[in-house]
Amino acid sequence: MNTLSLKKVYDAKNVLSKVARKTELIYSTFLSTENNIFLKAENLQLTGSFKLRGAYYKISQLSEEDRQKGIIACSAGNHAQGVALAAKENNIKATIFIPATAPLSKVEATRSYGAEIRLIDGVYDDAYREAVKFQKETGGIFIHPFNDLDVIAGQGTIALEIYEQLNDVDAIVVPIGGGGLISGIAATIKQLKPACKVYGIQAERAGSMYASVKEHKKIELQHVNTFADGTAVKTPGDITFEFCENCVDEIITVSEDEIASAVLSLMEKEKLVSEGSGALSVAAVMFNKIPLKNKNIVCVVSGGNIDVNILSRVINRALLKAGRISNITVELLDKPGQLKEVSSIIAQYGANVIRVRHNQGGEGTDINDCYLKISMETRDFEHFEKIKNALIDSGYNILSTVQ
Amino acid sequence: MNTLSLKKVYDAKNVLSKVARKTELIYSTFLSTENNIFLKAENLQLTGSFKLRGAYYKISQLSEEDRQKGIIACSAGNHAQGVALAAKENNIKATIFIPATAPLSKVEATRSYGAEIRLIDGVYDDAYREAVKFQKETGGIFIHPFNDLDVIAGQGTIALEIYEQLNDVDAIVVPIGGGGLISGIAATIKQLKPACKVYGIQAERAGSMYASVKEHKKIELQHVNTFADGTAVKTPGDITFEFCENCVDEIITVSEDEIASAVLSLMEKEKLVSEGSGALSVAAVMFNKIPLKNKNIVCVVSGGNIDVNILSRVINRALLKAGRISNITVELLDKPGQLKEVSSIIAQYGANVIRVRHNQGGEGTDINDCYLKISMETRDFEHFEKIKNALIDSGYNILSTVQ
Repeated sequence: MNTLSLKKVYDAKNVLSKVARKTELIYSTFLSTENNIFLKAENLQLTGSFKLRGAYYKISQLSEEDRQKGIIACSAGNHAQGVALAAKENNIKATIFIPATAPLSKVEATRSYGAEIRLIDGVYDDAYREAVKFQKETGGIFIHPFNDLDVIAGQGTIALEIYEQLNDVDAIVVPIGGGGLISGIAATIKQLKPACKVYGIQAERAGSMYASVKEHKKIELQHVNTFADGTAVKTPGDITFEFCENCVDEIITVSEDEIASAVLSLMEKEKLVSEGSGALSVAAVMFNKIPLKNKNIVCVVSGGNIDVNILSRVINRALLKAGRISNITVELLDKPGQLKEVSSIIAQYGANVIRVRHNQGGEGTDINDCYLKISMETRDFEHFEKIKNALIDSGYNILSTVQ
Repeated sequence: MNTLSLKKVYDAKNVLSKVARKTELIYSTFLSTENNIFLKAENLQLTGSFKLRGAYYKISQLSEEDRQKGIIACSAGNHAQGVALAAKENNIKATIFIPATAPLSKVEATRSYGAEIRLIDGVYDDAYREAVKFQKETGGIFIHPFNDLDVIAGQGTIALEIYEQLNDVDAIVVPIGGGGLISGIAATIKQLKPACKVYGIQAERAGSMYASVKEHKKIELQHVNTFADGTAVKTPGDITFEFCENCVDEIITVSEDEIASAVLSLMEKEKLVSEGSGALSVAAVMFNKIPLKNKNIVCVVSGGNIDVNILSRVINRALLKAGRISNITVELLDKPGQLKEVSSIIAQYGANVIRVRHNQGGEGTDINDCYLKISMETRDFEHFEKIKNALIDSGYNILSTVQ
C-alpha cells in the first residue's frame, strides 16, 4: 500500500518555497450562506494552476543522470505549463507533446516557458502515443501528471498551507481529474487533522474516480466530454485510486450547467478567473451538495487557464440559464414602425437590448418568414415573462423563446 | 490648505479592520520586465472595489443625529455598492440614486446590500439632480464619492497596507477618476516614505485631472466617454485637485485600446477580473509609460465590477487588436466545394475557425455579393498574413479583412 509521509510533504514545501506562491485563502461572502466558505486560490499560482507544485517537486527529485536525459510530458493544458516552467527553473530540457486541437493560448503559454513543443495531429491519446514513442527513442524521463508519489507530495503542500491559514478548517472540497491533487491534500490533512473531511468533486460527464470508488475497482470510461477539460480523465491511476479509497470521505458529481454557473459566479462575485475544472469545488458548494452546516469549508479553486473565447461562451450560457439574457423571436407584419414599437415595449419594462436581427426574408427562407430576433438583458425569468406577455398583449405573435 | 494627518489614516485603518479586507499584494511575473511589478488587488475588496473603505470610514464618523437622518448617494457603480454595504454594516438607512442606464448587474448588487434604490431615467447628471432634490426634502446626509477628507482618509489606508506589504516600494501607480483614491494614497505614502513616487493614470477620453494639473486650475470637460466608466468624471473636486497638485509626481493618460489590453492581460495572465478603471495602472505599465527601471512598482487594481456582457466585448476587441482573432471576407463563385477548400487552407495553417457566415445573396444584397465571412483564432498578425496569402495564391479574391 502506498503512503505519503508528512516528512515528504514538508520536504516538498521547502523545495517549492523557491518557486511556487503560497496562494491566498479568500473568504467568500457570496458563497457563505450555510457554511463559512474560503477559496484556496490556486488559479493565482504561477502557470495558472496547482500543477506546478507536483511537477517541480518531481523534477527536483531526479538524479543528475536522469536530468541529463531530459524530461517528457504529454498534456493539452495545465500539466504542460507546470512541467515547462519547472524544467526551465531546473535548467532541464523539456519536450512536451500537445494535441493539435488544444487552444492556441495554452500552446503559446507553454512555449513561453521555453519548452520544446511537439504539436500532434489528433486528440490526447494520439499525442500520448507519440510521447511514449519519443521516450523509448531518447530514454528521457516521462513526468506523469498524477500517478506518481512525488507529484502527489507536491500537491499535498496545498494542505499544509490551508492548515496554516485556517487552523479551524472542517472540510476541504477538491476537484478530481486523475486524482493527484486530492490524493496529496487528503493524505496530508488526515495526518494533521483526522477530523477534517475531504470531498472530491467530478464532472458528471467525466466521473471516472466517482465510478471507481463506488465499485471499489478502477473503472475506465469510454467517453469523457466535459467543459471541465482539465479533469477529463478516462481512468484513475493505481496510486491515486488507492488514496481516494482510503482518505476521501465522499465523491460528488456536478453537471455542466452547474460548472458554468460556478465559473460565472467566481468572475462576477469574487473577481477570480477559473477554468471549468478549477470551479468544480465551488459548483458543489453553490448547489448545496456538501452535507454540512455552519462549518469552515475550503474550496480549492485549482486553476484558471480557461481560453478567453471559451469563457465568452460560458458567460453567455450561464446568463441564459439564469434568465439574465433572454432571446425572443417575434413575427412581424412587413409594415413600418414595428421595430420601434417592439423596442419601446422592451425598454418600458427596463430590459436592455443587446442584439437585434431583423430578417425580411431572403433566398432560402420562406416568403412569410419575416421576424425580429432579439437578445436582451433581463433580471430573471419572471422579468422576461412580463415582457413576453406585454408583447402578446400588444398583438405580437411570439415564434420562439430561448432561455 | 487641506492636509491629511497620518493619525487620521491610522484611525481609518482601525475602523476598517472590522469590515474591509487587507487585500493581497500579488507579484506579476508577466508584467515584471523592466521593473518588479506588484498588483494591489482592490478588485478583491468586498463590494468589488476600494470604494468601501472611504464610504465606510465617512459613515463611521457621522454624529448620532446625522445617522438618524439616513444617507444619500448618487452613483452608477462602485460608490453605490460601497455606500450600500457601509450603511448596512452601520445600521443606517441608505437611499441611492442610480441612472436607469446603469448595468442591471450593478443595480442588483447594490440592492443586495439592502439599500433603497431610486432608478432615475437618463444619465448620471439626471440622477444627481434627483438626489440633491431628495437631500433637500429629507435633510439626509449626502456622501460624496471623492471630495471629502474622511473619504480620502479611508482610501489612504491602502497606502498603509502597501507600505507594510512591501517596505521597499519605489513607486505606486494609481487610477484617477475624481481623485479620491490617489489623494489618500499620495498624501499617506509621502509622509511614510517621501522618496516613493506616485503616478496617476487617467483614460485619455476622461482626462479632467490631467488637464487640471497641467493648467494648474480645475478644468471641466464637456464630454467624457470612456470604457473606464468608473473614472468618467468631468471635473475634479477642490480637495482632490489640491492633493494632486501637491503630492502626485506625474499624471499620465492611456488610450481605450491600451485599457482593453490591460483588462484582457489581467484575466489571462493573472486570473484577475478588473474593470476598465481598475486596469488603468496596469495599462500604463504594460505600455511603458512609467519612466522607471529596475524599481519596485505597485499598481493599484482599484476595482473589478465589470459587466460580463461588456467583458465579452472587451475580450473580443483586445483579441482583434492583438491579431489573435482575425476576420476575413472571401468572394465566392457560386459553385460547390469552395467552403471546403477555404476551410482546408485555413486548417492547414493551424488557425481555428470560430464563426462562418456564408452569404448566398438575398433580398437587399447585390446579385454578385456572394461571400464567405470567416472569424478565426490566429497566433498573431504574421500568422494571419500567411493564411491570407495562401488564399490569394489559390485564386480567391479577398473582399475585406478586419483586425
